[in-house]
Amino acid sequence: MSHSIKIVGTGLLGTSLGLALARHGIVAGLTNRSKASLRLAIEYGAGEEFAGDPDLVIVCVPPDITAETVISELEQHPGAIVTDVASVKSEIAAAIAAGSEHAERYIGSHPMAGREKGGAGSARADLFFARPWVITPTEQNPQVATTLIRDFALQLGALPTVMSPQEHDSAVAAVSHLPQLVASSLAARLISTDESQLSLAGQGLRDTARIAASDPDLWVQILSQNAASVAPLISQLAQELEQLGASLAEIELPGSLAKIHSILERGNEGVARIPGKHGGKYVDYHQMTVVIDDSPGALASLLTFIGDIGVNLEDLKLEHSPGAQIGLVEIQVLPSAADHLTKQLTENGWRLV
Amino acid sequence: MSHSIKIVGTGLLGTSLGLALARHGIVAGLTNRSKASLRLAIEYGAGEEFAGDPDLVIVCVPPDITAETVISELEQHPGAIVTDVASVKSEIAAAIAAGSEHAERYIGSHPMAGREKGGAGSARADLFFARPWVITPTEQNPQVATTLIRDFALQLGALPTVMSPQEHDSAVAAVSHLPQLVASSLAARLISTDESQLSLAGQGLRDTARIAASDPDLWVQILSQNAASVAPLISQLAQELEQLGASLAEIELPGSLAKIHSILERGNEGVARIPGKHGGKYVDYHQMTVVIDDSPGALASLLTFIGDIGVNLEDLKLEHSPGAQIGLVEIQVLPSAADHLTKQLTENGWRLV
Repeated sequence: MSHSIKIVGTGLLGTSLGLALARHGIVAGLTNRSKASLRLAIEYGAGEEFAGDPDLVIVCVPPDITAETVISELEQHPGAIVTDVASVKSEIAAAIAAGSEHAERYIGSHPMAGREKGGAGSARADLFFARPWVITPTEQNPQVATTLIRDFALQLGALPTVMSPQEHDSAVAAVSHLPQLVASSLAARLISTDESQLSLAGQGLRDTARIAASDPDLWVQILSQNAASVAPLISQLAQELEQLGASLAEIELPGSLAKIHSILERGNEGVARIPGKHGGKYVDYHQMTVVIDDSPGALASLLTFIGDIGVNLEDLKLEHSPGAQIGLVEIQVLPSAADHLTKQLTENGWRLV
Repeated sequence: MSHSIKIVGTGLLGTSLGLALARHGIVAGLTNRSKASLRLAIEYGAGEEFAGDPDLVIVCVPPDITAETVISELEQHPGAIVTDVASVKSEIAAAIAAGSEHAERYIGSHPMAGREKGGAGSARADLFFARPWVITPTEQNPQVATTLIRDFALQLGALPTVMSPQEHDSAVAAVSHLPQLVASSLAARLISTDESQLSLAGQGLRDTARIAASDPDLWVQILSQNAASVAPLISQLAQELEQLGASLAEIELPGSLAKIHSILERGNEGVARIPGKHGGKYVDYHQMTVVIDDSPGALASLLTFIGDIGVNLEDLKLEHSPGAQIGLVEIQVLPSAADHLTKQLTENGWRLV
């Protein structure tokens, strides 16, 4: 990769891109409207202040000013391919097509990486490692533009995948934007829940509401730009919940139990379709729970033991035990390893729950 | 505990109770309408076939036949306290009060323990360990009944807490039944989502939809018996999502962004109220991510290292990296330990992301 690269915007994504490029010996040219943020990113080692003539411009500004920034970069650098990293694509592509004579040099992309905290201070060189990186070419783009971004993503360790801007937006509406709004709405209700009621909360509520901790300022931009894709999904879900509420309110009426059962059953079917570890479908892993002390090294010695007997963990979760000073470790292994592991753990004094 | 105990129903909870009692040298008397299930539980070591005169009867049958079973047990054993383990309480208490002259000897309880898989085959002696165990006395109950169940729960390592049946049902409606229906409804929508769209799913969707894998047959009973508490919560949430859908559909109208922003912000506030590890409020843990090989022992050697330098993990999660043969380990530590840990990890060649 011998390109000269300009990164516009030095927040979480821009700074992380600069750090990732620096690992490959490439010094990115950075710009930011805030001189303080720019300086911070440079001090972190994400690049140097931009000067010169880039081959590739990567616009890493908030979604609501992405289109205008891309248009201005297309003007400034007539020889450059310009891309962006916004998590919505159709509206931005349409605004650029309408606002620039050079739209054929813009190709959208969306590295699906992020952290709950934003800003240059949260940047990581490996932010893109092993994450999907969606590239959204239009018919105007030459093939070389797609190849350029794909190679760039691969070099950063990301997993490029190509789809149209509309396909991208429908996909993230279903797998990201709808869950975000559901989690936020559910969590918002907890403001008025008594503390004594909340003390009965378990891992189910924790997991269901977890992403409600996301940044409202960023998300209102994302959602407003993908409103056309998200609105019908939300309305359909609202309608389904409304009917569910009605069935529950009239639980004695014939058919109401069947309606509730059907949603629960379809939920089983739907959740089984979410790809699991390593991009594959969920294998039916064997799950077991081991009790450990809540002390430094306790988890490590369990896992050392498991490693020593040659068993690979497919998943692991520390369970929170309200009020207890112990830890419950939920582990998942391939079914073929389960008997061996159970036997070894039990024989060696580990406490299975 | 020198009581003579009868357990009615040998599914997951009944068999687990029997196994837990066996650890304390107490042989429970077991009954089940299915002789095969009863025999399985006895072979597992959960007790022996019931005979004699119990002090305490624990009814562990499905919620929809709990009340009638309790009533029959109250008749059969005039000297016994009778409790149950159903996850709804008001309707059962009301049915027993209406159907039995001995309702003062019935005291409800709800050990908040379970597994995604039911049946005697999934039973564990430690199922109740470190889990909340709600006791729901009524005004008719003598204090000694509450004390009996509390001591019983404590002996099994559970964490007893006392509230009225109505308080219990409102609490679980908010922290358990509503999230279940939300997760199921969200997951149900994924049946019609394209596979290529699902390939972009991340940990957010996985967490939000996880509990949609729960047993529909059990949940339809739970929900139908707590319909009065759950219905208004579902309807309010449906209404909120409906308004959110309308705001998104008319995103250009003044005020629509503010409405969306408000839900996201209230979601932040609500999720922060969920108690975290050890029953406390979430501390603002410092989070970092370490890259490891996906091989037996890799996670163990990381955790051994962390234990060796004296750092206690507050939480740990294996992140699934679609398509990659590596693991990302998200760890959380107390803020005071963060600098030390980061320095030690980096200096010793661990790869922080």
